[in-house]
Amino acid sequence: MTNTKSLKLGAIGLGIMGAPMAEFLMNAGHPMTVWARTPEKAEFILNQGAAWAQTPAALAAEVDVLFLNVSDSADVEQIVTDENGILAGAHAGLIVIDNSTISARTTRDMAKLLAAKGAHWADAPVSGGQKGAQTASLTIMVGAEPAVYDRIEPLLHHIGKTLTHVGDVGAGQIAKACNQIVVSGTLAAIAEALVLAEGAGVDPARVREALLGGSAHSRMLEIHGARMLNGEYAPGFKAKLHQKDLGIVQQTAQELGLALPGTSLAGQWMNALVGAGMGELDSSALIEVLRRLNGQTSQAD
Amino acid sequence: MTNTKSLKLGAIGLGIMGAPMAEFLMNAGHPMTVWARTPEKAEFILNQGAAWAQTPAALAAEVDVLFLNVSDSADVEQIVTDENGILAGAHAGLIVIDNSTISARTTRDMAKLLAAKGAHWADAPVSGGQKGAQTASLTIMVGAEPAVYDRIEPLLHHIGKTLTHVGDVGAGQIAKACNQIVVSGTLAAIAEALVLAEGAGVDPARVREALLGGSAHSRMLEIHGARMLNGEYAPGFKAKLHQKDLGIVQQTAQELGLALPGTSLAGQWMNALVGAGMGELDSSALIEVLRRLNGQTSQAD
Repeated sequence: MTNTKSLKLGAIGLGIMGAPMAEFLMNAGHPMTVWARTPEKAEFILNQGAAWAQTPAALAAEVDVLFLNVSDSADVEQIVTDENGILAGAHAGLIVIDNSTISARTTRDMAKLLAAKGAHWADAPVSGGQKGAQTASLTIMVGAEPAVYDRIEPLLHHIGKTLTHVGDVGAGQIAKACNQIVVSGTLAAIAEALVLAEGAGVDPARVREALLGGSAHSRMLEIHGARMLNGEYAPGFKAKLHQKDLGIVQQTAQELGLALPGTSLAGQWMNALVGAGMGELDSSALIEVLRRLNGQTSQAD
Repeated sequence: MTNTKSLKLGAIGLGIMGAPMAEFLMNAGHPMTVWARTPEKAEFILNQGAAWAQTPAALAAEVDVLFLNVSDSADVEQIVTDENGILAGAHAGLIVIDNSTISARTTRDMAKLLAAKGAHWADAPVSGGQKGAQTASLTIMVGAEPAVYDRIEPLLHHIGKTLTHVGDVGAGQIAKACNQIVVSGTLAAIAEALVLAEGAGVDPARVREALLGGSAHSRMLEIHGARMLNGEYAPGFKAKLHQKDLGIVQQTAQELGLALPGTSLAGQWMNALVGAGMGELDSSALIEVLRRLNGQTSQAD
């Protein structure tokens, strides 16, 4: 077991996911330095004793492990390759842990750039949403060289409950893409089932209850099935982020020359959902698109 | 609590589902009379003391509750309306419990025919497959008038673990249709996820493991995800029956004027699966269709 107590940590991106994760890591006893595009977002953690870096380059220069938590492939690319970006300050031995959900291709590109300076990349996208981040119970899917994984595993335990070392760099992002395929496909199937029940004049709550007892059981049916019935669409996981993630999946499938027709359809529902102005709602609001399509009564406010 | 011990029971259809169900009911202490289109299928239960009826009409005439377990709407219709069918022998107070998966429309039609003779219909399709039938742990979705439900509930406990009174006659079949929508949609999503992992050169077993720990968790991922990885396609639930059930769903959606695009797509996969000669395999073999589509290596024997 590596002694990680002495590691100096850094965090870039202090949004609803990044903020609690950085806090847990600092509270575990690590010196913490942060940078955020919106400096106000850092105040809460500076007040608790974190240090502020002027640029991502300055931050990269002074820490051992740098956690990155932003929105998309383009954001990660910019923060790494900018004039004052991570790459400019990277040193041999630095490990960048990217908790963002981005493409496997960008991930591998960034890893190559860092490798030229002797630094390492680990993709570690998470599942579990805001609640998972706030309770350090995230599911974390890691792509990293084995030696790097061994070094960061104790750190990841401070923010996640279920860790899986999926494979080498990029494998974590592929696993996250697979996760979003299953989650969106299951959501869509549950939505179609409830729409059929509603259309047939059968109580959809009773149907959900019956299905929970059998082979149709899923965490989505339990949690998001209830949201669909009650119109409880406070996120949770925002539809616009789910849409973004399915865009990454489609891009990956296109690069690999893979046909994923069901995922493509789920992506269309997310497009319609965001297009209808519901992008800030939980992605379980997907059922509202199917209700619209079928002229059924909305449960949304 | 109704005393059901004195009820005379009948069973029509003694296939892989009907046979163990009839046996559990008889072993619970009820006199049992049976009829089957293929008389040899009744031998096992005649040897245990069940009586044989010459026709469905004769069976209906002498029992209080008749369990029906056949394959499709057309079979049920025939067994009810034939010259020597159930209707010909039905008496006031008879309850027919249909454990087959058929359409809600045929169900309501049959119920009306019986009602004219003072007899009752309860649709009680099941989920849980052969294993669920053999261990009396089926999930049963019931459509019946409340008074009829109260009367049959103690009997259903002998064959099922999770009972839900979904609503009036037909509601059980709608719930079963919803169940098949969720099951097939979830299966298809899991298959697409594993196909992406395989196509991206990432270990699909690790991906499944990672997903099981988070919001993508489902009974299908647990059981059928493993089947897909290992090519373990011994049924389980046969693809040709899943195809038949999705046909019922599509027919119901068409009658109601409902669009269910994801379910329609899942139905196409089942068509391709059966068309490829894999109809006798477990329906988790659906992934083989997606592997074919994407030029990936089959796991089937």
